[in-house]
Amino acid sequence: MSHLYGLILAGGRGTRFWPRSRRAQAKQVLKFFGDRSLIQQTVDRLRPVLPPERIWILTNDYLRAEIVKQLPEVPKKQILAEPAQRNTAPAIGLAAHILQSIDPEAVMGVFPADHVIGKPRDYIKLIKPAFKAAKEGKIVVLGIEPRWAETGYGYIEFPKGPGAGGQRPVTSFREKPDAATAAAFLQAGNFYWNAGMFFWKTSVLLGALRQFLPKTATLIAGLPPFSSRQFGAKMVEVFPRCENISIDYAVLEKARNVVGIPAGDIGWNDVGSWNAVYELQHRDANGNALRADTLVVDSGGNYVDGAKSKLIALLGVHDLIVVDTPDALLIADRGRAQQVGDLVKQLEKQKRDDLL
Amino acid sequence: MSHLYGLILAGGRGTRFWPRSRRAQAKQVLKFFGDRSLIQQTVDRLRPVLPPERIWILTNDYLRAEIVKQLPEVPKKQILAEPAQRNTAPAIGLAAHILQSIDPEAVMGVFPADHVIGKPRDYIKLIKPAFKAAKEGKIVVLGIEPRWAETGYGYIEFPKGPGAGGQRPVTSFREKPDAATAAAFLQAGNFYWNAGMFFWKTSVLLGALRQFLPKTATLIAGLPPFSSRQFGAKMVEVFPRCENISIDYAVLEKARNVVGIPAGDIGWNDVGSWNAVYELQHRDANGNALRADTLVVDSGGNYVDGAKSKLIALLGVHDLIVVDTPDALLIADRGRAQQVGDLVKQLEKQKRDDLL
Repeated sequence: MSHLYGLILAGGRGTRFWPRSRRAQAKQVLKFFGDRSLIQQTVDRLRPVLPPERIWILTNDYLRAEIVKQLPEVPKKQILAEPAQRNTAPAIGLAAHILQSIDPEAVMGVFPADHVIGKPRDYIKLIKPAFKAAKEGKIVVLGIEPRWAETGYGYIEFPKGPGAGGQRPVTSFREKPDAATAAAFLQAGNFYWNAGMFFWKTSVLLGALRQFLPKTATLIAGLPPFSSRQFGAKMVEVFPRCENISIDYAVLEKARNVVGIPAGDIGWNDVGSWNAVYELQHRDANGNALRADTLVVDSGGNYVDGAKSKLIALLGVHDLIVVDTPDALLIADRGRAQQVGDLVKQLEKQKRDDLL
Repeated sequence: MSHLYGLILAGGRGTRFWPRSRRAQAKQVLKFFGDRSLIQQTVDRLRPVLPPERIWILTNDYLRAEIVKQLPEVPKKQILAEPAQRNTAPAIGLAAHILQSIDPEAVMGVFPADHVIGKPRDYIKLIKPAFKAAKEGKIVVLGIEPRWAETGYGYIEFPKGPGAGGQRPVTSFREKPDAATAAAFLQAGNFYWNAGMFFWKTSVLLGALRQFLPKTATLIAGLPPFSSRQFGAKMVEVFPRCENISIDYAVLEKARNVVGIPAGDIGWNDVGSWNAVYELQHRDANGNALRADTLVVDSGGNYVDGAKSKLIALLGVHDLIVVDTPDALLIADRGRAQQVGDLVKQLEKQKRDDLL
């Protein structure tokens, strides 16, 4: 298919991966699995549909240099730093404007930079029809079959009926549910996780923005084409004035022509915490996942992440997250991995910029 | 009192303090409490009785340079490296020979380099009569009133009678007891811990060695005086041929003229493991002893030892020993602190000389 483009959203911080994650080394550029970072793996897995020269990346000033370094195959001018954090609607609108100015027939897919997909071939089998439906003028969203009653994700409701597969209208979008609602969703079988993967023609998306988010749409429409000399300066001026809102709230929940592709098991994982990294790793007979030079005695269920040049010895300890870096060491109960981000908030309060 | 000398035995390794302790940074030269190492504190506390120029130190080749650096007040020629590890009897015999060759009236006290004494003034009040009794020709041993039924120390049995204080004949020396025996000792009240502190005239000790350990006594007696040019070379030749035996077995258990000074609470602690270091530290309201730049959330009972230039964050963890050094990190359950030495044995087997 021609006219296809990928937008990778790579502006997040991933503070739950401190002390490995820092402002200039956020989650998406870290190598948790093998020797390719999450964003490198994202580009790799899209390759059967989107060659690197069709990939565009939106990130921030802290991260851009590292991403440029990690992805030499992606044209440098297509890796852009957002002048301000404005959530997904303005970012996606900006990218749609850019692509529209290059190729009025552009069809774009939006992909998070920091997820894992364990079965990339099955994934590609979903991406192709998603792009096809988008080319036909629809707004397309990928749904992930839920594996537990997660309260941390939004859900996509489909009409009751067959399981995963095919393409179906979306009945509704649901915000992060409470535990009882999440359990009911799981039980019902027609609610899927919203993994932030969307497909549309840039003309369709820009039209939807004009309809549902006119202020931001007008600001973005006022930008010159990407090829213009003034583009960079104008973007820095205009972008911060856009509304701070997600594409889900701004467009998806309101648009009429939304269809979903309910995905079966594609091994999707949003790698939400060190505990997720632990669970995705190979573990030894005692349930230890060891990414360091280690000496382990009577210890189990631990995740250890350190430098190859340093020995980490464990004696009689269990279910710990141990992440050692040159200037900071984290030792956390594995069940508390979600709260690592709170440590970063404390460091921010203490103005420990050296550690952020 | 004149003719008094102190011998500090500083040849141990203290592997239970890995990764802080290394061959060239053994327990006795580490700074666990304040900014003076254990051997510096040993010299400091003896000062009211023994000025530094009366202090002699036996150590090994790995440690000598560090001890010379830490104790500039002790004459460098009095800090000697044993040519081989031969336990306490040959070491003490060698020191007695040296002192005898310098001062035939010498009275020597023997002190471990790596203990803590919380009440140094009370301690000095015991040292003075100990030296006095030694000067009168007795072999004197200090006993420490037991605080629990410890199975890791030898015991000194006194005649039943009053508690601590004064000077009394020794009924017997007892090797490390089993738990039931240790409990009986504690219950009986007339058994004291043998802390390895002894006092005698060098002439008396050398006489006892001739009687009870004649081979080693003859070897040592054959050495030239300390002032001789040949002393160093001869010592290197002779010392390794001495018997590998402790002074307790070789002399104390057999000699007739042994008296003991049963000490009350002088705050003695042999600092046997990281857990002892933890217990001797100031702890916060959650029972954490923190010797590092730390960020602590919902964690208690931990000992943390690190560099000031590195943040150590604890989240939801309890009763851990955390010791961070540039090339090795230890995370151990505090109840397993005694077994840290076993980790070092494993490293020795793996020939990880860089970490020993």
